[in-house]
Amino acid sequence: MSYKAGVVGAAGFAGIEAVRILTLHPEFELVAATSNELAGKRIADVYPNFEGVTDLEFVAHDQAALDTCDVVFLAVPHTAAIAQAPALVEAGVAVIDLSADFRLKDPAVYEQWYNVKHTATDLLAQAAFGLPELFRDGLEDLAARRAEGKGVLVGCAGCYPTATSLAAAPAIRAGLAGPGVIVADAVSGVSGAGKKATERTHFCFADENLEAYGVANHRHTPEIEQILDIPGRLVFTPHLAPLDRGLLSTVTIPLGENKVTQQQLDEIYGNFYRDDDLVTVLFGGIQPKTGSVAGTTRAHVAVVLNEHANVIVATCAIDNVGKGAAGQAIQCANIVFGLPETCGLQTIAIPA
Amino acid sequence: MSYKAGVVGAAGFAGIEAVRILTLHPEFELVAATSNELAGKRIADVYPNFEGVTDLEFVAHDQAALDTCDVVFLAVPHTAAIAQAPALVEAGVAVIDLSADFRLKDPAVYEQWYNVKHTATDLLAQAAFGLPELFRDGLEDLAARRAEGKGVLVGCAGCYPTATSLAAAPAIRAGLAGPGVIVADAVSGVSGAGKKATERTHFCFADENLEAYGVANHRHTPEIEQILDIPGRLVFTPHLAPLDRGLLSTVTIPLGENKVTQQQLDEIYGNFYRDDDLVTVLFGGIQPKTGSVAGTTRAHVAVVLNEHANVIVATCAIDNVGKGAAGQAIQCANIVFGLPETCGLQTIAIPA
Amino acid sequence: MSYKAGVVGAAGFAGIEAVRILTLHPEFELVAATSNELAGKRIADVYPNFEGVTDLEFVAHDQAALDTCDVVFLAVPHTAAIAQAPALVEAGVAVIDLSADFRLKDPAVYEQWYNVKHTATDLLAQAAFGLPELFRDGLEDLAARRAEGKGVLVGCAGCYPTATSLAAAPAIRAGLAGPGVIVADAVSGVSGAGKKATERTHFCFADENLEAYGVANHRHTPEIEQILDIPGRLVFTPHLAPLDRGLLSTVTIPLGENKVTQQQLDEIYGNFYRDDDLVTVLFGGIQPKTGSVAGTTRAHVAVVLNEHANVIVATCAIDNVGKGAAGQAIQCANIVFGLPETCGLQTIAIPA
Amino acid sequence: MSYKAGVVGAAGFAGIEAVRILTLHPEFELVAATSNELAGKRIADVYPNFEGVTDLEFVAHDQAALDTCDVVFLAVPHTAAIAQAPALVEAGVAVIDLSADFRLKDPAVYEQWYNVKHTATDLLAQAAFGLPELFRDGLEDLAARRAEGKGVLVGCAGCYPTATSLAAAPAIRAGLAGPGVIVADAVSGVSGAGKKATERTHFCFADENLEAYGVANHRHTPEIEQILDIPGRLVFTPHLAPLDRGLLSTVTIPLGENKVTQQQLDEIYGNFYRDDDLVTVLFGGIQPKTGSVAGTTRAHVAVVLNEHANVIVATCAIDNVGKGAAGQAIQCANIVFGLPETCGLQTIAIPA
Repeated sequence: MSYKAGVVGAAGFAGIEAVRILTLHPEFELVAATSNELAGKRIADVYPNFEGVTDLEFVAHDQAALDTCDVVFLAVPHTAAIAQAPALVEAGVAVIDLSADFRLKDPAVYEQWYNVKHTATDLLAQAAFGLPELFRDGLEDLAARRAEGKGVLVGCAGCYPTATSLAAAPAIRAGLAGPGVIVADAVSGVSGAGKKATERTHFCFADENLEAYGVANHRHTPEIEQILDIPGRLVFTPHLAPLDRGLLSTVTIPLGENKVTQQQLDEIYGNFYRDDDLVTVLFGGIQPKTGSVAGTTRAHVAVVLNEHANVIVATCAIDNVGKGAAGQAIQCANIVFGLPETCGLQTIAIPA
Repeated sequence: MSYKAGVVGAAGFAGIEAVRILTLHPEFELVAATSNELAGKRIADVYPNFEGVTDLEFVAHDQAALDTCDVVFLAVPHTAAIAQAPALVEAGVAVIDLSADFRLKDPAVYEQWYNVKHTATDLLAQAAFGLPELFRDGLEDLAARRAEGKGVLVGCAGCYPTATSLAAAPAIRAGLAGPGVIVADAVSGVSGAGKKATERTHFCFADENLEAYGVANHRHTPEIEQILDIPGRLVFTPHLAPLDRGLLSTVTIPLGENKVTQQQLDEIYGNFYRDDDLVTVLFGGIQPKTGSVAGTTRAHVAVVLNEHANVIVATCAIDNVGKGAAGQAIQCANIVFGLPETCGLQTIAIPA
Repeated sequence: MSYKAGVVGAAGFAGIEAVRILTLHPEFELVAATSNELAGKRIADVYPNFEGVTDLEFVAHDQAALDTCDVVFLAVPHTAAIAQAPALVEAGVAVIDLSADFRLKDPAVYEQWYNVKHTATDLLAQAAFGLPELFRDGLEDLAARRAEGKGVLVGCAGCYPTATSLAAAPAIRAGLAGPGVIVADAVSGVSGAGKKATERTHFCFADENLEAYGVANHRHTPEIEQILDIPGRLVFTPHLAPLDRGLLSTVTIPLGENKVTQQQLDEIYGNFYRDDDLVTVLFGGIQPKTGSVAGTTRAHVAVVLNEHANVIVATCAIDNVGKGAAGQAIQCANIVFGLPETCGLQTIAIPA
Repeated sequence: MSYKAGVVGAAGFAGIEAVRILTLHPEFELVAATSNELAGKRIADVYPNFEGVTDLEFVAHDQAALDTCDVVFLAVPHTAAIAQAPALVEAGVAVIDLSADFRLKDPAVYEQWYNVKHTATDLLAQAAFGLPELFRDGLEDLAARRAEGKGVLVGCAGCYPTATSLAAAPAIRAGLAGPGVIVADAVSGVSGAGKKATERTHFCFADENLEAYGVANHRHTPEIEQILDIPGRLVFTPHLAPLDRGLLSTVTIPLGENKVTQQQLDEIYGNFYRDDDLVTVLFGGIQPKTGSVAGTTRAHVAVVLNEHANVIVATCAIDNVGKGAAGQAIQCANIVFGLPETCGLQTIAIPA
């Protein structure tokens, strides 16, 4: 294995998924999985899916040890990444941040939606955005800097922004969106609500239930608008459904005066993702299923022309913790380290 | 018990739910549950939730017996209701049709979306629309005609139209909708796909999965546009989620130049459903949960002003087989027979 | 409504199910649902299935108010019932205890398994055991005492003991059990783990998972042995499965030298429950399904002769919160108040 | 890749899981996935989890092509393997049979439980039993024969026998079982019922449901008795629970006069599986969870001394399609081809 890797905040769902992928990754060697709360416990004592696989223990945050890593994944709450990233980058580490701290390019927007001042704006300006299919250039720029021995920072896209943007970007970038709002109604599995046991995540309340949440005020709204360059035009409504892992975003884009056929749409989408191994466009009326990508870093996308209402309906299915978080973070790391983009990510979802 | 009731097509999910409600209904006596396929079998042999409750058997279709019923519920595929309703109405029966045959007022629209000619257009013209909270007058008119001994017909709303319209109607009828499309993204449990065992309804494919279907061409589109009087303006996209019963519709309505505050919205919605026992508006940011109404004929509704994008987001949760089908049919029958609207429908969902 | 009812500990799963049933019960009027933690909150704010049904609020424990009730259901943790029952009985209230405090007839056994001294042994001696199909006489004796104006106490059976004993009792009481252990492997839905949000009840850990727990030391062991009079002979192993409500117990009983045919077994079981409206024996190889009784107070039972290994395999499906807790408590109350045993309990599970 | 592999019956759940594993296996190259029904369809059209992974198509059965494979996995119904294995073995192929045809060593037992005559008894006599942790010697003998260029046959253990035997074997082989029956109550996910859409596998019937099936007559009974050498002593009762993949077997073994402590049990079990990478013994009261091994070829085992009833309760969790079928088949193939036993099987279950 070529590179030493650390995961900060390894006990949460995104963190432990990073641990799971890194444990089998051929080029990154996991040397530190930190959790101040669980330090000293075997990972397998907390997540028994690691029984028989590894006896690695969670360790307390240790800056010196992390500074010697080649790459550190920050799977921490927002503001915690702002606190930790600068020193790591300074130490020459490639930092892959899974939090919201380095996603929004405008600190004022960050402050507006997160109600806290951004205190690492210099670093923010240098960060690449971690959604390779849409912003691969920025990541490849980091690869060049890292190759010169410099610390670099990736602010990875959130789960909803990933699925929503992968669905909408080909149409938006092709200039197909007419006037009017763009509506993204997305549905996530319960793992999106995090590891903390709450009433919302209690099986008996989540099971056999559907509900919307964060209506009109979810913090992923400005991130999606930034990615797609549609300021003030997005209506984003997330929903919770009774499954563990999986996220489906359905995006309705008005065409206005623009004309397009289903065949042209298929070509636009097919061409857009032609060179992307982890994003697959489905044709012929086949719709993406989250079950087809659960546990992986893959995305399935489809697009349908709705002539009746003169709109496009684009859909994308991902695993919210995989392509929506840890998997995508490792995909970014692969690029930054000049590895094949799918290195360690060549898994296939369970068929049934 | 005052009235004799029959259920035609009692073996499907909507039919058997009608049987379930009627078995405990204080005023309707179930005298015939028909299923040509299962005739002669005890209902409990097919649906063991009836074990210990009733030894009633499915019977083959018997026109003479049905003609003597006071009320007949048609839980049959479309076109089958067109074939059966006229004779029953002629015989003086109150027919409550759960199929799509008598929902669309314009036979041309029916023919366009269902690819079959409507051959009972006279009856269609007389049918009341079965969504009491929005069209109670029509049902009460039927009550008067029935009281005179005449046969009458109700074409009950579909499951998606019920939830979508209950969410949107107060805003639409208040004239709040500005220009642009109205987007209804709705999610249903698997019972909406019917009793037939298919790949779609196989546990291993439906479980832990989310997907859209019928994108751009679902037949509930014209029905919702008719109910809300928004011709050509609806984008309706249904989705499937891994639960048995429950349907959530999220409707995004552009405001355009219209001005409204959250407080005004709450008042509009609260007033709209003030006298409706089975529809409850939730305030204070509480969102409807399908789990709260599963197994019942109740609907929960909420409305949120999204100032960011200048739209309203209205949501409604129902049980697709309850308020979305059999429960609403019996609610309509209650009205037609002059009974309290909630007669036999006073159930409460399981808390957890 | 004839009688005033209170529920102490109304916020937990068993308590709120009692509230749900009592809200629709024709003879008991719910006047107090206590929860010191949630006092002052509308029940519907905590359990939105009550939205549109009742605006009743949780109240703090108020002994004077409870003393004026005709019946009080104690849905509290063990030891709390010992603390509360004596004063209520003294005040002439019919107390229906859903906790473990008054189930075990021998205080020494209680102390051994619950690690706490029983301090209400006089009351324990007077308590009837709340599992009507097996101990109806004791409940009818209480009815007589209550009719004389005296306070009475029922210690209701636990969920696992209810299902396990209903499965095994006909065979055991018929003397069919030969030497050797009796093995009860039972599987419960997650509601059995209670309302508290924990790692065990987190959707992402409970979903798509099966596990045993409490192996070799579950406290329901002595209760089942007492009910079936099989001291030291029971191996009871509970399991958790990913569903909300439902409990299936599979009991293997060795025959030894005893001879019996399947037909005789069917007769023994059919006769045993002949007069019980809420327990149904299934014949012809049909096995009980928890889905057929979920949300109800019903039990389904079947028995199979396994000639290969010379044992009987008896199974029973219940809703752990219904027949296994609140529903059975109200069934007991019905008997104690001389009401029809199924009063308010005539519900039917959702078919699909 | 060193060896050419074929999967016969690739469209079923076991077959497609073999395809999934082989697609990523570093030493076996999948050259033919047969399905007469689906021949000519892309695998990904049927199982969209393969979209973006492979464009391989199902092919019709082609004996000549299969004869050129190094290894062929038979994922076919019983009797079909008897029909197909002899020619393949004759052609020098290593045949790994996932059906029941070559599991039972005594053809008379096969005929008794499967109601069909065994017509390949010579081959049956040469077949190794495919449960490596318990019968590795036989598989290693085949490796030697295969290395000499001879065709060989493995009859892989069934899913229930695998879990039940892994749980019980250490205790049984240590001579701890006293007189009396051994009770195995096992619970499986719905994938165990196969890909065919039936009422049993319909989401709305399987969801939120628990039931026993095959009581007293399940065909895995003689297989488990053969593995554990406990003729006529096993009571095996399988159950269905609402999850996709996962199988938990709980085995109760009477001790009789035998004496053992929990510490001794832990040692016996720990030593028994000391060299097995895919079976992990859990200690300290930790119970196996199927969620911890779903999607993998791993097994988790625990053992508890129940002093109260003088029995041992041993449990084992597996993925019924993984370690219970396709994963184990490939584990066997690895041994037969002299590869590391876990080659291609080093996956880790999703944590949450």
